[in-house]
Amino acid sequence: MGLFDYFHANRKSADVAKERLSILIARDHFHRHQPSFLPALQNELLEVIKKYVDIDQDDVTVSLDREEDCEILELNIALPEKRHNKEA
Amino acid sequence: MGLFDYFHANRKSADVAKERLSILIARDHFHRHQPSFLPALQNELLEVIKKYVDIDQDDVTVSLDREEDCEILELNIALPEKRHNKEA
Repeated sequence: MGLFDYFHANRKSADVAKERLSILIARDHFHRHQPSFLPALQNELLEVIKKYVDIDQDDVTVSLDREEDCEILELNIALPEKRHNKEA
Repeated sequence: MGLFDYFHANRKSADVAKERLSILIARDHFHRHQPSFLPALQNELLEVIKKYVDIDQDDVTVSLDREEDCEILELNIALPEKRHNKEA
């Protein structure tokens, strides 16, 4: 089962009331001497998302895990229940 | 097992030679009448990533799946083997 299928299957068991955005970015097989750009990317990504939906910084949870040759950045954003889509 | 753990476990079985970025964005429990911003977000996200690494459009695969109240956008980017980190 691929990541897509896993994600798709597991969303059924998640909180059914709240709209949310889940973002996962994995950088795989990079060299240890290379600097990480994921923390900077995280901030830029949030700025881009704010163009489309209203998000409160308190409703954003971030985790960054690093190992020898892999980094995984995960962001979870709970969206406000009132009208929040700036495109609507 | 959470999404993070799944991703972390499964990367071990992936192609071990190639550096890559995998990005998954899920928008959950949104209302059908709301327009989708994920295709626009996808383009902006790629522009942001290009600030940090050289990527070739041919090395980017994208899938977007929509159901009644969920959208999942997945991007996989194979990074070139030569020096590609613009921060280095």
